[in-house]
Amino acid sequence: MNTVTLMTDFGIKDGNVGVMKGVIWGIAPEVKIADLSHIISPQNVSEAALVLGRSAPYFPQGTVHIVVVDPGVGTERRPIAAELGPQRFVGPDNGVITLLYHYAEEKRWPIKIVHTDNRKYWLPEVSDVFHGRDIFSPVGAWLASGISLEKLGTLIGDPVLLEIPSPIWQDGVLSGEVMHIDHFGNIGTNIRRSDLANRGPVSISLAGVEIKGVMRTFGERDLGELIALYGSTGYLIASVVNGNAAARLGVKVGDPVTVISQSHQSPHE
Amino acid sequence: MNTVTLMTDFGIKDGNVGVMKGVIWGIAPEVKIADLSHIISPQNVSEAALVLGRSAPYFPQGTVHIVVVDPGVGTERRPIAAELGPQRFVGPDNGVITLLYHYAEEKRWPIKIVHTDNRKYWLPEVSDVFHGRDIFSPVGAWLASGISLEKLGTLIGDPVLLEIPSPIWQDGVLSGEVMHIDHFGNIGTNIRRSDLANRGPVSISLAGVEIKGVMRTFGERDLGELIALYGSTGYLIASVVNGNAAARLGVKVGDPVTVISQSHQSPHE
Amino acid sequence: MNTVTLMTDFGIKDGNVGVMKGVIWGIAPEVKIADLSHIISPQNVSEAALVLGRSAPYFPQGTVHIVVVDPGVGTERRPIAAELGPQRFVGPDNGVITLLYHYAEEKRWPIKIVHTDNRKYWLPEVSDVFHGRDIFSPVGAWLASGISLEKLGTLIGDPVLLEIPSPIWQDGVLSGEVMHIDHFGNIGTNIRRSDLANRGPVSISLAGVEIKGVMRTFGERDLGELIALYGSTGYLIASVVNGNAAARLGVKVGDPVTVISQSHQSPHE
Repeated sequence: MNTVTLMTDFGIKDGNVGVMKGVIWGIAPEVKIADLSHIISPQNVSEAALVLGRSAPYFPQGTVHIVVVDPGVGTERRPIAAELGPQRFVGPDNGVITLLYHYAEEKRWPIKIVHTDNRKYWLPEVSDVFHGRDIFSPVGAWLASGISLEKLGTLIGDPVLLEIPSPIWQDGVLSGEVMHIDHFGNIGTNIRRSDLANRGPVSISLAGVEIKGVMRTFGERDLGELIALYGSTGYLIASVVNGNAAARLGVKVGDPVTVISQSHQSPHE
Repeated sequence: MNTVTLMTDFGIKDGNVGVMKGVIWGIAPEVKIADLSHIISPQNVSEAALVLGRSAPYFPQGTVHIVVVDPGVGTERRPIAAELGPQRFVGPDNGVITLLYHYAEEKRWPIKIVHTDNRKYWLPEVSDVFHGRDIFSPVGAWLASGISLEKLGTLIGDPVLLEIPSPIWQDGVLSGEVMHIDHFGNIGTNIRRSDLANRGPVSISLAGVEIKGVMRTFGERDLGELIALYGSTGYLIASVVNGNAAARLGVKVGDPVTVISQSHQSPHE
Repeated sequence: MNTVTLMTDFGIKDGNVGVMKGVIWGIAPEVKIADLSHIISPQNVSEAALVLGRSAPYFPQGTVHIVVVDPGVGTERRPIAAELGPQRFVGPDNGVITLLYHYAEEKRWPIKIVHTDNRKYWLPEVSDVFHGRDIFSPVGAWLASGISLEKLGTLIGDPVLLEIPSPIWQDGVLSGEVMHIDHFGNIGTNIRRSDLANRGPVSISLAGVEIKGVMRTFGERDLGELIALYGSTGYLIASVVNGNAAARLGVKVGDPVTVISQSHQSPHE
């Protein structure tokens, strides 16, 4: 009884996510299905990649993550399926697997990717506008039900991967950027706990505001105070205690974040 | 292990949809439940009928679709259950089954409908304001668990059906209307692919704008371009490539859409 | 095959609810999971308590309700698990169980609560900001899979309970307040059907408007009319027939509601 997750930009109004579950259960009646998110910003592959990258590792081994954020539906972009260590993926070849791919590389887990061009595992009729229903759901269901990746199509070695911006240290200043604004208005960055290791006390700048030091938890400061801490996946975030940091600072994805290591500051600063 | 789907206008804030699942699993612990939509516009039966009509056919045979969009809760409107070929339905008798009903007629599938007046299959206590919990969830659960339709109540032959507006050809002009605006802002119409068969090149007018021809897929045009194509259920839609057509044109449900068949145009036009 | 419900203020965008399901199914692959609500207003424990109190009783015996609305994440507030008669609970010790607790007291059901400090049933790594994933999901999953409450930690007798405002009769006037605005704009109060028993005809005042009498159902009045009736859990609500009462009256949670019992009115009134 495998698990399947669904992530799309389809919204929750039109029934399209439900339809995907209908198709999946028609093929693999035993699978459990969890929704990851269906309100990914329309066509925003980077956002989907981020959500997938930090969610997938918490699912049981063999889980099939179907991600359909597909600006290229109906064009020549390939449908793919992948094994990235313990997690599996089905969706358009648009880079949404980037974080999982790099994570698997880091861990030296086996990586295997196929162009799912074997139409035997698609629905008999395929529309030009809803491959989530007609290709990705059936392919994901077959994969979850035990069909091997190789049967689904042709092995490939050149999946699309996104450029993920890395923060850079220069002269005691780390230049990063805002990657994500969450439901609470917490501001997620691309700066990892390890980037700040052995750097001594730091001070964070974003949107013209400075935050001194990194807290361990929200509870260390008063309601409404702006703080920095590490999020649940180890990245630096800026938060307002029980408030909305992104709204207060007017910050958006892509905005710069800099960290100054106090130990590198010259006495004149 | 049957499947049940839920569609309501209850929203996702108050726990009422969760409560329906609690009632269902109390009676039929083995059923799988998929949400179709819970943000149907309040009391909008037509919208629910449309979502049901294009979603239900993708579910496994015997799936029970519970649809509670119920402006008449607590009045004399009947609770019903129906078999419409391979799909089954439970909900208030308000016309939400219209598309499924006509589809079953077209296919000459067996149609059977009962007034679910056998209180043995309701919750013991029935409120006047939440029949989704007290009548439709238990009835749907019993149906999914193997109780026959006939046991649930009295056979009827006069279910409420909605008038679905059909597009009309006159003098080379097809007059249709906007049926649905989806999450992406795609504008769905009541014009089918078959309505335009053998009509040669066409041009579509809505909201004072003209669209020449029907594309096969979004990928054939540039980002931001307004195009017409066939949606995933075969109806003509107007879209902006990776954009929001309804917002750009200020279109709403019920607005007129006309198609001019070029082959019928007089030389003076 | 036990049932687990999830309620949070995490929203549905970031994948965090999905991650909780991944953790749960990794431990207890057989459990069914229902979402109660994930758009509880951020950090609003009272709202969550209300939704839990009226939803939980409709779930099968032994259901584990995981509720993570947690302004104190990362502070010394205790993680707890509880048996409150037939329903079970896992979450931070913040009073969210209050209604279920009082209900169990009223029914003289057994109540048992533990501080879930046995880290054997947590994830191996616990972040300071996402206990929903690292503590409450695994603890809930172990509980649903058959581990006894006692094994999860230390029995306690002093759970946090909220002060729930009770309506008060004085000189023929009952003073209550607005507890909840639902998705339809219905205005829920803390006044129970039993509070108005044997009081004769009543008239309800809120937001400077008077409503005469309590209807049985929406269908008794015309579209757009403001009425009072009893909601599905027996509390007095104010509604506009197929409309939005809260928006029309500009009412919010905490606003006063008074009921005048006609039989107590003096002739001068």
